Amino acid sequence: MESYNIIFHVNELDKWSMTLANVSNLLIDLADKDVEVIVLANGAAVRYYKTESTEADIEKLTALSEKGVHFTACNNSLKAQNLNKEVLHPFVNIVPAGITELVRKQHEGYAYIKP
Amino acid sequence: MESYNIIFHVNELDKWSMTLANVSNLLIDLADKDVEVIVLANGAAVRYYKTESTEADIEKLTALSEKGVHFTACNNSLKAQNLNKEVLHPFVNIVPAGITELVRKQHEGYAYIKP
Amino acid sequence: MESYNIIFHVNELDKWSMTLANVSNLLIDLADKDVEVIVLANGAAVRYYKTESTEADIEKLTALSEKGVHFTACNNSLKAQNLNKEVLHPFVNIVPAGITELVRKQHEGYAYIKP
Repeated sequence: MESYNIIFHVNELDKWSMTLANVSNLLIDLADKDVEVIVLANGAAVRYYKTESTEADIEKLTALSEKGVHFTACNNSLKAQNLNKEVLHPFVNIVPAGITELVRKQHEGYAYIKP
Repeated sequence: MESYNIIFHVNELDKWSMTLANVSNLLIDLADKDVEVIVLANGAAVRYYKTESTEADIEKLTALSEKGVHFTACNNSLKAQNLNKEVLHPFVNIVPAGITELVRKQHEGYAYIKP
Repeated sequence: MESYNIIFHVNELDKWSMTLANVSNLLIDLADKDVEVIVLANGAAVRYYKTESTEADIEKLTALSEKGVHFTACNNSLKAQNLNKEVLHPFVNIVPAGITELVRKQHEGYAYIKP
């Protein structure tokens, strides 16, 4: 089976809406394929992961997480904004440095998409 | 002959001007090389392809198309904005899902550029 | 030793702050690795390289340059803005066409990051 690995990069809060739409469409389009999707947030975009966020589409975020999308946050960005694991959705993975994750995954063959 | 494959991603209307300038410069710079250029528009950026667009640089778009640049639109984005093939320039290709095209082309070795 | 090659693309002045933060974090995170970082500026972003820029964080730019980061400017963009080598920091490299550089480096295996 053809396999697709993709890492989405979102570093601004106002790009989340498009990012989630892009991910949803991709999963529908590749429903019969082996797909691995990571969404890597750094900069201000990590605030979207807060359980108390009023702007986040939590329903869509949760649904995509349940479909296997790996939502990931850069710890440097969390620290810069005085956020920690406790205030984020439990399904969010934290990596020490978001940019390193983007580099590593591209070297592993992931396609890079910046919505 | 060295060969270059590039896919440009544009998802905002105000990024078209820079995108077309980038593509033009690339074609001039690689004039003696084998170059394949795709411009993939999704999101609001697909509106730039409308024949009735008042903001588009139709002359430049047409000229680049005649030089072999593949202007492509995401059908999910067209549907979301109630647009169809009939209102777009005839040289615009439509793909079912723009993000899948970006992923596929990167897996085929295309360089990805987000202007 | 594992080796990491990365090219950052910045084409807007207001993306420099995040770009430099991303590069700094990457160098810290990969301090024990073999890392090659290019920052490619085109479009309006090349103005950040002016020695007389009032908005640039010249201290950080210089420090990163001294750590081996290759700050690069697109000559098409410089010409479009009536700038030349003389008004830029001496550590800035100039390439004829920025987009070609982004394409070439990706083909050489560099990861592409658009902050």
